[in-house]
Amino acid sequence: MEDVFKIGMLLDFYGQLLTKKQYEVMDLHYNGDYSLSEIAEHLNISRQGVHDNVKRGRSLLGSYEKKLGLLKRFMEQKSKMEKMLKHLKGIDISGMKYEDRQKLSGVIDDIEELIERL
Amino acid sequence: MEDVFKIGMLLDFYGQLLTKKQYEVMDLHYNGDYSLSEIAEHLNISRQGVHDNVKRGRSLLGSYEKKLGLLKRFMEQKSKMEKMLKHLKGIDISGMKYEDRQKLSGVIDDIEELIERL
Repeated sequence: MEDVFKIGMLLDFYGQLLTKKQYEVMDLHYNGDYSLSEIAEHLNISRQGVHDNVKRGRSLLGSYEKKLGLLKRFMEQKSKMEKMLKHLKGIDISGMKYEDRQKLSGVIDDIEELIERL
Repeated sequence: MEDVFKIGMLLDFYGQLLTKKQYEVMDLHYNGDYSLSEIAEHLNISRQGVHDNVKRGRSLLGSYEKKLGLLKRFMEQKSKMEKMLKHLKGIDISGMKYEDRQKLSGVIDDIEELIERL
């Protein structure tokens, strides 16, 4: 997985476990695409301070993922649900009763919603 | 949710974030149904030490759940998937092609596996 994208995902999962400053700096850098210098100026802290927060933040995110594995689990669940969606959408509903079509389309909606909220 | 059951679930989710001792004491008490005195004897530490580990462990689990909400999310996902299962199992497959029945039963298996592994 591409590093910036992966860190962005880890921030979504574990951001609440970082300090406010660590989260702010990491969010600007990895989700907002700000350079370290821009963040230093924006937050009025030293470039070294920004660098330290990024380094510590990355290390913490890595350690939480190693312990809890939420990103790994998310990727597996998402992939399984997408496979399920593909199978359900591939079912020919022409021979099915109206109420059964409704059940099937309700489940398809539910899975799509589950993927969104994973 | 019943307290002992809830703490047991939180231990599954966040146990890796506790110290080894906190986890050991909490696991014996909430999953193994040991009394604090039994744990003190078993681990050869004071009853006060056991009590402190339980108190600190409960507080940490509560704080992680407040920040990450994994148990809440798990309960919601489980309930949605059980609803989906009920709907899919209620579909009358008599008018469906063989390959579509296979798709449907495959998805039912996948959902049951997802619930197991949530």
